[in-house]
Amino acid sequence: MTDPLRAGFGQRLAESVRARGALCVGIDPHPSLLHAWDLDETPQSLERFAMTAVEALAGEVAVLKPQSAFFEVYGSAGIAVLERTIREARQAGALVLLDIKRGDIGSTMTAYAMAYLDEHAPLAADAITVSPYLGYGSLAAAIGIAEQTGRGVFVLARTSNPEGAGLQRSIHGSGDSVAQYIVDSAAETNAGAEPMGHVGVVAGATIGADELDFSRLNGPILAPGLGAQGATVHSLRAVFGAALPNVLPATARDVLRHGPTVDGLRAAAHRVRDEVNDLLRD
Amino acid sequence: MTDPLRAGFGQRLAESVRARGALCVGIDPHPSLLHAWDLDETPQSLERFAMTAVEALAGEVAVLKPQSAFFEVYGSAGIAVLERTIREARQAGALVLLDIKRGDIGSTMTAYAMAYLDEHAPLAADAITVSPYLGYGSLAAAIGIAEQTGRGVFVLARTSNPEGAGLQRSIHGSGDSVAQYIVDSAAETNAGAEPMGHVGVVAGATIGADELDFSRLNGPILAPGLGAQGATVHSLRAVFGAALPNVLPATARDVLRHGPTVDGLRAAAHRVRDEVNDLLRD
Repeated sequence: MTDPLRAGFGQRLAESVRARGALCVGIDPHPSLLHAWDLDETPQSLERFAMTAVEALAGEVAVLKPQSAFFEVYGSAGIAVLERTIREARQAGALVLLDIKRGDIGSTMTAYAMAYLDEHAPLAADAITVSPYLGYGSLAAAIGIAEQTGRGVFVLARTSNPEGAGLQRSIHGSGDSVAQYIVDSAAETNAGAEPMGHVGVVAGATIGADELDFSRLNGPILAPGLGAQGATVHSLRAVFGAALPNVLPATARDVLRHGPTVDGLRAAAHRVRDEVNDLLRD
Repeated sequence: MTDPLRAGFGQRLAESVRARGALCVGIDPHPSLLHAWDLDETPQSLERFAMTAVEALAGEVAVLKPQSAFFEVYGSAGIAVLERTIREARQAGALVLLDIKRGDIGSTMTAYAMAYLDEHAPLAADAITVSPYLGYGSLAAAIGIAEQTGRGVFVLARTSNPEGAGLQRSIHGSGDSVAQYIVDSAAETNAGAEPMGHVGVVAGATIGADELDFSRLNGPILAPGLGAQGATVHSLRAVFGAALPNVLPATARDVLRHGPTVDGLRAAAHRVRDEVNDLLRD
């Protein structure tokens, strides 16, 4: 494995996907999933849930994606569980993409980057999701710090929810949609990087076929929506076309509902991974 | 004071502003401010900073606005300080607007709402900032839970940073700008509320004069940018026009740099409040 302090995130992700398959599994401790696992809504149960997911999956899948909201509900006790979740998942060999969708300006954005992309931070992950409502340029501090620390950022471009279309398809001054402007801005940052750059985009596997042009992106595409939201591995080809090799499909509930046993979770993750592998091999 | 469990956020804010003046002071523990106060970058110093700000200001100004990013940098230890900051500021009579700019979909947005807008949550504030990149409709859970709990949400519309213009001025399917679409969506939610609704917008005091039409909003307008970012109390009139009575000007560094003494902070807050009061009385 490449030295993570020297390799860029694009290279680290490519290696992890080559070794483990192109799959990102969310750690989303919904109240409904806690109950399905016979757990209550306490920080102790949250920890039990997250540690079970880490035990089952962190040695298996390329990327684990804890959803920060479900930890924040429990305040500092929940964040302590999140710290442990990130740390143990990384130690077991998974890349950790923390799904936090942060976005702010200036010194505040720098603070978010220091909180999640600096190795010495209690919540240091391998990558985070960020939100570009304040402009792609507002994310500069996170994009710069991620590059320095061998980490990545995934910028929301075109999300899988129906309410997202109106804003994300608005026409930017460039003449393209807002979503395409985000993809193109990431492409500029990633230009020339080998095997790909460290700025990814988020684009739901449920959006229209060929709605966006990813041909110059040269970065990873996180594609949520597989399973619970209705997208299939076959929709991936329609939506992403030639960019398919850079797609990291994400699922959560389709794996997590097979808990609480480690074996059940692991078998479910293998099934989804094999389905994705088959598609990419076609 | 109205019973906070019965009154809506619009009413609670109007009463607080009537009693204390229209001013929101940020609690932004920048590293540079910590150093200026002779503090280092530790959770203990963070707590000292935040508790000093609360002691100086929570009995004085209408709204205190802790910036979550500067607490998240310290992981769970920082979030424990944020819990205490919110709790003690509210106990001292300030409304607490937690600046977190969260935005997500479905059950994740519900989790954010439960984390920050439910009275039993460790981080329960009076209002939060939210980001609409996933569509105004994606915020429905937060807007609904805030209404039930007498709390508020402030939706980013037109931010004070130069990088924000491109996306926020993009043309939405409605024919208006994205920023105007957000203002109009909030207006729909607030229609008919007395004295105003619980969905505010964020619009920088540095944007162009009359760029947005706030005439139907019937909700509060958080206007950052006063002081450090170059806006003056006089720009407020140019930007907001007839909506000026609903504007809550926000400042942080212009007050915080007068620490670390409680007297210095309090005197600075009074100066800014009096300036704003003079403007609104003209």
